[in-house]
Amino acid sequence: MSAVDVPIALLGYGTVGAAVHRLLEESGDDIERATGHRVRVVRALVRDAAKERAGGPREIFTTDFGEIRDDASIALVAELMGGLDPAATYVKELLAARRPVVSANKQLVARHGAELFAAASEAGVQLRFEAAVCAAIPVVKVLREALVVSNVHRVLGIVNGTTNFILTQMEGGADYAGALAAAQDLGYAEADPTDDVSGADAAAKMAILATVAFGARVTPGEVRHRGIEGVTRLHVAAARELDMAVRLVGAATLVDGRYDVRVQPSLVDRQHPLASVDGAFNAVMVQGDAIREITLAGPGAGGIETASAVVADIVSVIGTSGTGFLQNDACWRELEALPPGDVRSPFYVHLEVDDVPGVLAHVALRLSGHGVSVARLIQHEHEGGASIHVVTHEAPAGEVEAALAEIAALPECRAVPSVLPVISDRGVSGLGWS
Amino acid sequence: MSAVDVPIALLGYGTVGAAVHRLLEESGDDIERATGHRVRVVRALVRDAAKERAGGPREIFTTDFGEIRDDASIALVAELMGGLDPAATYVKELLAARRPVVSANKQLVARHGAELFAAASEAGVQLRFEAAVCAAIPVVKVLREALVVSNVHRVLGIVNGTTNFILTQMEGGADYAGALAAAQDLGYAEADPTDDVSGADAAAKMAILATVAFGARVTPGEVRHRGIEGVTRLHVAAARELDMAVRLVGAATLVDGRYDVRVQPSLVDRQHPLASVDGAFNAVMVQGDAIREITLAGPGAGGIETASAVVADIVSVIGTSGTGFLQNDACWRELEALPPGDVRSPFYVHLEVDDVPGVLAHVALRLSGHGVSVARLIQHEHEGGASIHVVTHEAPAGEVEAALAEIAALPECRAVPSVLPVISDRGVSGLGWS
Repeated sequence: MSAVDVPIALLGYGTVGAAVHRLLEESGDDIERATGHRVRVVRALVRDAAKERAGGPREIFTTDFGEIRDDASIALVAELMGGLDPAATYVKELLAARRPVVSANKQLVARHGAELFAAASEAGVQLRFEAAVCAAIPVVKVLREALVVSNVHRVLGIVNGTTNFILTQMEGGADYAGALAAAQDLGYAEADPTDDVSGADAAAKMAILATVAFGARVTPGEVRHRGIEGVTRLHVAAARELDMAVRLVGAATLVDGRYDVRVQPSLVDRQHPLASVDGAFNAVMVQGDAIREITLAGPGAGGIETASAVVADIVSVIGTSGTGFLQNDACWRELEALPPGDVRSPFYVHLEVDDVPGVLAHVALRLSGHGVSVARLIQHEHEGGASIHVVTHEAPAGEVEAALAEIAALPECRAVPSVLPVISDRGVSGLGWS
Repeated sequence: MSAVDVPIALLGYGTVGAAVHRLLEESGDDIERATGHRVRVVRALVRDAAKERAGGPREIFTTDFGEIRDDASIALVAELMGGLDPAATYVKELLAARRPVVSANKQLVARHGAELFAAASEAGVQLRFEAAVCAAIPVVKVLREALVVSNVHRVLGIVNGTTNFILTQMEGGADYAGALAAAQDLGYAEADPTDDVSGADAAAKMAILATVAFGARVTPGEVRHRGIEGVTRLHVAAARELDMAVRLVGAATLVDGRYDVRVQPSLVDRQHPLASVDGAFNAVMVQGDAIREITLAGPGAGGIETASAVVADIVSVIGTSGTGFLQNDACWRELEALPPGDVRSPFYVHLEVDDVPGVLAHVALRLSGHGVSVARLIQHEHEGGASIHVVTHEAPAGEVEAALAEIAALPECRAVPSVLPVISDRGVSGLGWS
C-alpha cells in the first residue's frame, strides 16, 4: 500500500509531548505497516516558541492555537498540555471543527468527558483518551472495543501508583511517614502528595473508568474517596494475619441499573489478582456477564509509557478513520447513583477495647442487631486492652456503619472503630463489593 | 444514526456457535450503539440441517458451504467449526471472495495463520481470531492495535487452564495423578488429557501469540514444548521453599531479531504476576520498549467466554470495515530462530545425590566449568542420600545442559538431574528469559 501523509499537531510539548514526537518519528514504519499512513507532526502549541526545546525542530512551534484550529490540513490533534483551562476550550473547538482529538488529560476527561464525548459524536469524529488512565495499560480500548457486549457491572482498580508503592513499603515494615518519604525520594510522590494520598487522583481515574464501563456520566465529585493517611502498621499487620493485603482500591459497581463509585483503602485477599500488584504498578479488573473477569496490569505512569498510549490512540484513530467505530457517544445513558449505604461488601473492622469479660458479646450483639454476621475474628491482648480484628460476611455498608456507631458508644470501646471493605471473591455476581 | 442491517453467517453451530448466535441477539442494542449496525445471523453451516437445535431457527441451517460462500449479501462469516479440514479451505475461499472472517480455531490459525493473514491482506479484508487464544482475554487485539509501536520482545503466558489447575491442586498437596483426576471430574481435563498435559495445546497458542507479537511466522512445530507429567511433589515443595510456584509457562523471546518460543514447566517467583494465576485461569505478560510490561489475565476457556471473544471480533470488524486498519498482513517479516542453547535464563536444577563428602564441590565445579553460577542452594538429607535444589544466575540453556550432562555422569549422582527455567525479574531487558 502506498503511504498517505497525515499531518498532526500537538498541544503542549513538555515531557509527554516531546516523547510522543520522538516515538512517532521512531515508529514511522510500524505505523505505516499498521495503518497505511505516515504520520508527521507539523505544529506544536507551546507557551514560548523561542525557548530551546530538545528534539523539536523550532519551526513546528507556535503560541497561537488558531494556527492549529484553522489549518484544515491537520488531520488529528493530540492534547498533551494538561489542566482544564484552556485545554477544555481548545478540545471543544477542535471537535466542533471536526478534528479528531487524542487526549492524555485525566482531569479534562474526568470532569468534562460527557460533553466532550457528545461533541465528538455530534461531529462524527473520534476522541480517544487511553493515556488519561493508567498510562500504557489499554483499559479504555478494551472496555470500549473488546467488551462492548459484556454488560460490565464492576470495575476494581489499583489506579494510583504512588499509594500502592507506599502501601507495599508498609508491608515491608515501614511506617506511613517513612514510606511516603521513600516514595518522594524515588520521585513516585510529589513534594505535596495530597492529590495522590487523599485518593483524589484515583477518584478522577475511577470516574473515567466508570463512565466508559457503564456508558453513563460519572463525575469525580460523585466518587466517594478516602485516602491512605489513616492506614497504620496495625492494619497492615492485621491484614497479613488474615492473609490479605492493604491496597487503595477504586470500585465502580452497577447494581440494578444504579451505580456506586468509591476509592478507599481495602483489605484484598491474597488470592485476588489485585493483591499481587506491588510497587508503583496499576491494575484494573473488569467483571461482566460473558467474560467473568479480565484483569489488566502494568506501569500506570511514566513519560514514555504515557506517550506510548497517546501514540497507540493516534494509530487507532488513523487506522479507523472514515468508519463509525467509536464515533458513538461513550456516554449514552443516564443512571442513578446507588445510595452509599446500600452498597454490599464484606468488611474488615478494627476495634480497640478494654480487656474485660463480656466485651466481645457486646460487640457481637451490636453487629447481629444490624444483620451483620462475623466470618473471622482475631483478638490480641495488650496492656490491659485488646485489639479486635473482625471480617464480616457481605453486608450493606449502611448497616455496618450503624452497628459501629453503637459499638463506638460502648463504654469498653477505647477508640473510634476503623472499617475497610474486603475484596475477596471473584466472578459473576454483580452484587456487592466482593 | 440509522442502523444498517448486516447479514452474517456461522460455520458450525455447536456450543460456541449457538452461544455466539444468542449473544448477538441479546446484544443487538449494544452492537448498534457501538457500530451503527444491526447484525443478523442469516445462515449457519451444519452437518445435519434436520437435526433439532435449541435456540436456532431451523431455516438458517444449511449443509452446503457454497450457499454461504456465494451469497454476496453476507457481510461476514464466523468460523466456529474447528479442525483443519475443511475449515482451512472454507476460510481461504471466503477470504478470496473478499469476505471478512472471524475465527475461533486455534489449530487453524496456529498452523495456517501466515498464509491466511497474507490472503486477507491481499484481498483487503479483515481476519480476526481473538477467540483462538485465551478466550475472552483480548490479547490479540491489544498486541495488534494497542502495542503497534512497542517493539514487543517477549511474551510470557500461562495459556492452558487445565495444566494450571493441576499445578495449583498440586500446590495444595495433591499428587499429579490425583490432581489430574480432580481436573477430569470437574470437566477441566478431557478423558485423554494428552493435548493439554503434554504442552501441545499451549505450544499452538504460543505459536499464534509469537506470530502476532513479532510479526513473523512461527509454527507450532517450532515451539519446543515439555509437559507437566514429570512435575512431582518434590518440585512443588522445593518451589515453595524457594518462594516460587511451578507453572507451565509459554515464553516467546526475540533477541537481536531472532526468536525462541517454548513451553515448559517453570519456577515462577512469587512476586511475578504469573505466579498469582491460580486454577483454570490464563494470563499473558507482554514486554516491550515503551510499555515495560502489560499483563492480561482472565478465564482462558469456556463456551460463553469464547463466544464473547467471537462477538467482540465481529463488532470490531463491523466497526472498522472500509478502513485500512488490520487489513495489513500480521505476518510481515521473516525471522530466524535462535539456537535453543543460546536462550538465557536463570534455571532451577534438582539433583539426587549420595550424601558423601565432596559431592557439592563436584557439582559446583561442573557448573562453574560452564560459566554457570549458583544464586541459591538448598540441600535436604534423607536415607543416606541428599536432594540438592539449585537456582542459578542467568546462563545460556546450552551451558546448563552441558554441565548437567557431566553431573549426571558423576558416580555420586543417583538420578537424571531435572532442570526447569526460572521466571523472576521483570522489565525492559530483551535478553534472557527473566
